[in-house]
Amino acid sequence: MRISTLSIGDELICGEVADSNVSTIARALMEQGLRVLRHITVGDSELDIMSALADLGRTSDAVIVTGGLGPTADDLTTRAAARATGRRLVVSEEAKSHIRQMSGKLATLIVCPLSDKQAMLPAKTTLIPNPTGTACGFQLMHNNCFMFFLPGVPSEMERMLHDSVIPFLGERVTRKRIIRSAQLNVFGPCEAEVNELLAGIARPDQGLQMGICVTFPWMRITFRAEADSEEGAEALLLPSVQTARDRLHGYIFSQGTDTLDEVLAVLFRESGLTLAVAESCSGGMIAQRITDLPGSSGYFLEGQVTYSNGAKIRTLGVAVKLLDEKGAVSSEVATAMAKGVRRVSGSDLGLAVTGIAGPDGGSEDKPVGTVFISLAAPDGCWTKRFQFSGSRNEIRIITSWTALDWLRRYLWQRAAAR
Amino acid sequence: MRISTLSIGDELICGEVADSNVSTIARALMEQGLRVLRHITVGDSELDIMSALADLGRTSDAVIVTGGLGPTADDLTTRAAARATGRRLVVSEEAKSHIRQMSGKLATLIVCPLSDKQAMLPAKTTLIPNPTGTACGFQLMHNNCFMFFLPGVPSEMERMLHDSVIPFLGERVTRKRIIRSAQLNVFGPCEAEVNELLAGIARPDQGLQMGICVTFPWMRITFRAEADSEEGAEALLLPSVQTARDRLHGYIFSQGTDTLDEVLAVLFRESGLTLAVAESCSGGMIAQRITDLPGSSGYFLEGQVTYSNGAKIRTLGVAVKLLDEKGAVSSEVATAMAKGVRRVSGSDLGLAVTGIAGPDGGSEDKPVGTVFISLAAPDGCWTKRFQFSGSRNEIRIITSWTALDWLRRYLWQRAAAR
Repeated sequence: MRISTLSIGDELICGEVADSNVSTIARALMEQGLRVLRHITVGDSELDIMSALADLGRTSDAVIVTGGLGPTADDLTTRAAARATGRRLVVSEEAKSHIRQMSGKLATLIVCPLSDKQAMLPAKTTLIPNPTGTACGFQLMHNNCFMFFLPGVPSEMERMLHDSVIPFLGERVTRKRIIRSAQLNVFGPCEAEVNELLAGIARPDQGLQMGICVTFPWMRITFRAEADSEEGAEALLLPSVQTARDRLHGYIFSQGTDTLDEVLAVLFRESGLTLAVAESCSGGMIAQRITDLPGSSGYFLEGQVTYSNGAKIRTLGVAVKLLDEKGAVSSEVATAMAKGVRRVSGSDLGLAVTGIAGPDGGSEDKPVGTVFISLAAPDGCWTKRFQFSGSRNEIRIITSWTALDWLRRYLWQRAAAR
Repeated sequence: MRISTLSIGDELICGEVADSNVSTIARALMEQGLRVLRHITVGDSELDIMSALADLGRTSDAVIVTGGLGPTADDLTTRAAARATGRRLVVSEEAKSHIRQMSGKLATLIVCPLSDKQAMLPAKTTLIPNPTGTACGFQLMHNNCFMFFLPGVPSEMERMLHDSVIPFLGERVTRKRIIRSAQLNVFGPCEAEVNELLAGIARPDQGLQMGICVTFPWMRITFRAEADSEEGAEALLLPSVQTARDRLHGYIFSQGTDTLDEVLAVLFRESGLTLAVAESCSGGMIAQRITDLPGSSGYFLEGQVTYSNGAKIRTLGVAVKLLDEKGAVSSEVATAMAKGVRRVSGSDLGLAVTGIAGPDGGSEDKPVGTVFISLAAPDGCWTKRFQFSGSRNEIRIITSWTALDWLRRYLWQRAAAR
């Protein structure tokens, strides 16, 4: 089944907002063994929408359209869909009653009264229910192409995609090819190094593709096997993934979709250890990433964002003399911070970071990007100097990654040693 | 000038990564009064790339292509470009020497050795220099359409776009229409409320478009005026923006591209006040957002991520009795945290947040999403209860927004009162 996607919105074509729906839809289809052939984005122009619908309709068996179904005047998708498929616009009683129902249910900070415009749909279409919002979706068949129209709000779109569109398509797919994929997530090495380590694994002629995707500061390596049967696809996929795992070893922080933060959370829960964090240049980013995950209160005791020297002295017990002699950005202060936060919080592990994220504050022997990371544990305390490069934000991000990956390796080795 | 964009990559069409290049390019073009007509994404398939190039080449005066120029085997753009435009692939000495030069310069954590593949370019093309990476870009003219090929790595792409592509296009544009745009950024009201407040301002028939873009949890309202002259466009734009400003008033946190965090940083610097933050459910997100900005060490003294009750008692001096009687998520504890962090840090302002981000931990009278925010200042202490809804992550995000927007309003009113 040839499937295409179409995103509609001036905010997309003018670059005001990044379009996350494209990847959400593509991912959901991949899970069904379906691939997106082509994606198009156009602005809120009736003619551009109509011409894109016509182009995709000609070459695809199904088109999934997102955006432009809202209550405001710049939302033109419904009208364009009607014109492109030769239908009249009619008031849908079903849509009306849905909107009435939803306006009762929703009572968040950002939801509000509604307009009748959203109850107008092209004639002879099937409503796609929207359980979390007011904009109704709809689907229709035009020249042997299924067309699905969903709102652009990512959470509403995703729910409707999974509840309605995917099951509908799934029933109609005559699965000739099975696609199985696996993903290894890697932090540390560069693209060319990974490429060299993995040389010879991909065999596109036999249906085994490999892709490396750099997503600063980490990398996702994807293997995709295509065969006539489930067994055939797995026979291609599994040994290749195992070879890649062996070669990349410690660089891999997860397989599948787990983030580094999620892996770390599991390791913490299994270890029974507790953690406290003292941050200077990363300014709370490490604590924020750790507490992003539910259940983190089970092992995360506290974070100290000790931006000023005063805070380092008062809350962590860093010696004034040390700060004066070595400077706030030094191996000695990082060590004192890690030990300090471990001591005052009573945690098992104390993690500390101090550095110069820039753009100012660098010197000849400690340029912007100089970062000290220290880990104080029951079995020792280790401190390491790093030299990162990039913008302030990039330095902060790579600092938090390096620190969290260090924790991952520590917990992983500890678990392996048992 | 009709401009289209084409993104290439299996990682995009399979949904493994969101494509930020589309919006970067569109924004840069908008600043030149140029609009993207259509965007297409295809995977790493030579035939799909060729057919997309042919389609866009037919209807556009310029096509900007990103992705697929890397050193790895799945990068096929160069070969597809050569075939689509009837050119041979040749080793470019210019590209070779660029690659040699760059490999010396680059010495970050993520940069590495190189392959010869990147020195192969289609014949009769002009090299587009890449000052920050090894993959060379190139441009060519085919059937009266300028085609630009840039690497997919966002930072490299952006630099080359601004250094080479935009100036090249700028020289060739015969500017018939002037586009001027303005942006108001709003936090607080819902889309329909904003729509109602702004009714009647847009006049698309006269060339004044208005768009509302919801980017959880805030909204961007864009005005775009199109006219024959600079003066004509401004005469359309400025009064409309002023009317919108008057009607939305306190909801607006910035005009243009400044984020809430940036606006707050300016207000802090102007006020001369210092800040300390105590966070429970937001887990460091507020401190992280504040310290994201250079110069924040001038007013941000420290952050305490007091996740455990022990940390609230020890580092903020919250009374054990209060925690026992009222619970950690209560108006009283929020107030004690704000006053506590202000006292121990010696800051002018103390901001505290305590709440239930979920998914667990809710009760009947304090369901998930219950958040108390407290601000302790020299002229008083205010605490407010909020009921947010959404996922754990959404609740944390809206909590940090609400807290930071409160700071903005406080500093803004203080400045206005002077």
